[in-house]
Amino acid sequence: MATNKMKAPASDTKEIVDVPWAYRETVDRLSPGGRYIDMGTDVDSPWVPFGDGAAIKHLMFDVRTNTYSNILWMKGPGTIGTHLHRGTVTMVTLTGSVRYLEYDWVGTPGGLILEVPGEAHTLVTEHPEGCKLFGWMNGPIDFFDAEGVYADTVDVWWMITHYETYCKENGIPLNPKLYL
Amino acid sequence: MATNKMKAPASDTKEIVDVPWAYRETVDRLSPGGRYIDMGTDVDSPWVPFGDGAAIKHLMFDVRTNTYSNILWMKGPGTIGTHLHRGTVTMVTLTGSVRYLEYDWVGTPGGLILEVPGEAHTLVTEHPEGCKLFGWMNGPIDFFDAEGVYADTVDVWWMITHYETYCKENGIPLNPKLYL
Amino acid sequence: MATNKMKAPASDTKEIVDVPWAYRETVDRLSPGGRYIDMGTDVDSPWVPFGDGAAIKHLMFDVRTNTYSNILWMKGPGTIGTHLHRGTVTMVTLTGSVRYLEYDWVGTPGGLILEVPGEAHTLVTEHPEGCKLFGWMNGPIDFFDAEGVYADTVDVWWMITHYETYCKENGIPLNPKLYL
Amino acid sequence: MATNKMKAPASDTKEIVDVPWAYRETVDRLSPGGRYIDMGTDVDSPWVPFGDGAAIKHLMFDVRTNTYSNILWMKGPGTIGTHLHRGTVTMVTLTGSVRYLEYDWVGTPGGLILEVPGEAHTLVTEHPEGCKLFGWMNGPIDFFDAEGVYADTVDVWWMITHYETYCKENGIPLNPKLYL
Repeated sequence: MATNKMKAPASDTKEIVDVPWAYRETVDRLSPGGRYIDMGTDVDSPWVPFGDGAAIKHLMFDVRTNTYSNILWMKGPGTIGTHLHRGTVTMVTLTGSVRYLEYDWVGTPGGLILEVPGEAHTLVTEHPEGCKLFGWMNGPIDFFDAEGVYADTVDVWWMITHYETYCKENGIPLNPKLYL
Repeated sequence: MATNKMKAPASDTKEIVDVPWAYRETVDRLSPGGRYIDMGTDVDSPWVPFGDGAAIKHLMFDVRTNTYSNILWMKGPGTIGTHLHRGTVTMVTLTGSVRYLEYDWVGTPGGLILEVPGEAHTLVTEHPEGCKLFGWMNGPIDFFDAEGVYADTVDVWWMITHYETYCKENGIPLNPKLYL
Repeated sequence: MATNKMKAPASDTKEIVDVPWAYRETVDRLSPGGRYIDMGTDVDSPWVPFGDGAAIKHLMFDVRTNTYSNILWMKGPGTIGTHLHRGTVTMVTLTGSVRYLEYDWVGTPGGLILEVPGEAHTLVTEHPEGCKLFGWMNGPIDFFDAEGVYADTVDVWWMITHYETYCKENGIPLNPKLYL
Repeated sequence: MATNKMKAPASDTKEIVDVPWAYRETVDRLSPGGRYIDMGTDVDSPWVPFGDGAAIKHLMFDVRTNTYSNILWMKGPGTIGTHLHRGTVTMVTLTGSVRYLEYDWVGTPGGLILEVPGEAHTLVTEHPEGCKLFGWMNGPIDFFDAEGVYADTVDVWWMITHYETYCKENGIPLNPKLYL
């Protein structure tokens, strides 16, 4: 128990091992279940326009904790204006490159970006093909206009509405897999 | 306020907008701060062997909530034996392919895998080049041997020890960025 | 916006103010909803025996995050043997007193106890009437026997089974309010 | 393992059992540690006025997740005007009584109140002695004035500033225990 003796997976047997787990029926009855969501196509979730030069592919909505996941696609050089995070962000650069005017690094594919509550910053991509950013976010994000006047708050409810409005307008059935 | 009027980012001005945020000094004083962690090279974090055919690149440790992030690299066809999740997993397939013996989907690049507490499953890659999986995990994972006997529990403390032991043995300085 | 100008609640009008919240219908459709759970009687949840000298009143089960809430009632002087926390605990002493053999404080009514991942400790009450502890817990707790041998893990699934087994044996209907 | 065989604590030995936990040194080095915070006196944290008829005793600030804990004391009949929750609230009625204009229950001592993202409601106490409410909150709360105009957002940064400003004005040293 907890002796860190394990230097490799305890088993590499390519078969299902019957582990002593007494709650299987309870899990089957009460768990929403894990799932696989395809991000590479539009089968599970469409690209929903976010202004002229960007789009969002919504991947997960958790209304109990105000958590949501998506890919933000900036289709060419562009900016997401200064916004303020009330919660946390975990983001992976999938394609292109991205940076913040406030920081000195440039995110490239295989870059992990962590953001924490209380940060306000301005997202820029200068890559000719923009960027795709996978994000896993908790809590709201406050957006401001170019004069610094509060404009709107984006959180799980905004995201759901963004997704559902587009689906309804385009005759796309809502995908229950996206709702945790 | 909260009228979902925002169809595009409130500002696309490529300059830092002075948002009315009264707590900047407090954030500077108390926040651990966001950060950028390079996953594409060994600069921020080395590949630490996990058995003969796999390795882990550790990216983030949060000891307050038992949350951790890493890339699991399986270098060729192989198996991570049946294990039981006590918490949640968010995983993105970066390269190759992966599936679970218990489920009917195959994860490919751009695939998002969500796992929830109470699931036990057996991870397999049959891709000739294996797979790289980005993972963001909360809570412990119980591992069992090929006979279904409990072997060890992997959580943030196991992960930290896995990382630090390898670094010490190889004269690699610990990277403070990885500790949230 | 966020200038900390608010030294008092923005409104103390004893009437419902129509706030500009665009997502009311979506919330009604998708949110599990807030709720009130009575802890003072057995109406919402019975006392379920936990050995001879203790009982647990289960209050909330969240299977998505392995979070659970309950009151632990120790009916007189007694001990909960050494156990190891994988996640977090927030506990309020409601009656009596409690301490841990490992620490130097004694918890009395109005005492807030915070516990974090990786702590192992031994809970003792020496109060003639024992104690009642309100707890809000995330993640599993590993229990060991008097020889330090691993015995069992308590988490949301154990808690649900503890509650449901007792209810079934005693003809008490399961209370859907307890399942978030 | 995980067979729910445990009907009582695995051990009731009133002594510290040496559990096989390999990470003790790592925990000692990296964990912020659990702690006990006295809510019954002003020793750990003072009552900070929140308008004329209310006060807040701050208990915990977690800036990494925007989580905070406190006691809200309404000193007599009164109202906290309509506000909107972006995150979750876990609240225990300690004294007096409390209700929301929007719901049909009345919270009394020993009552557990759960709130989830997207709820807007108006808190009222009609008890001659008001109420004391222990709360554990994640994420921001938006406040509106009597005309429904957005006034301010309360989150962990507001709470820290509320606490620290009062302490500085009154020569009370900041208590490091409150900062997780």
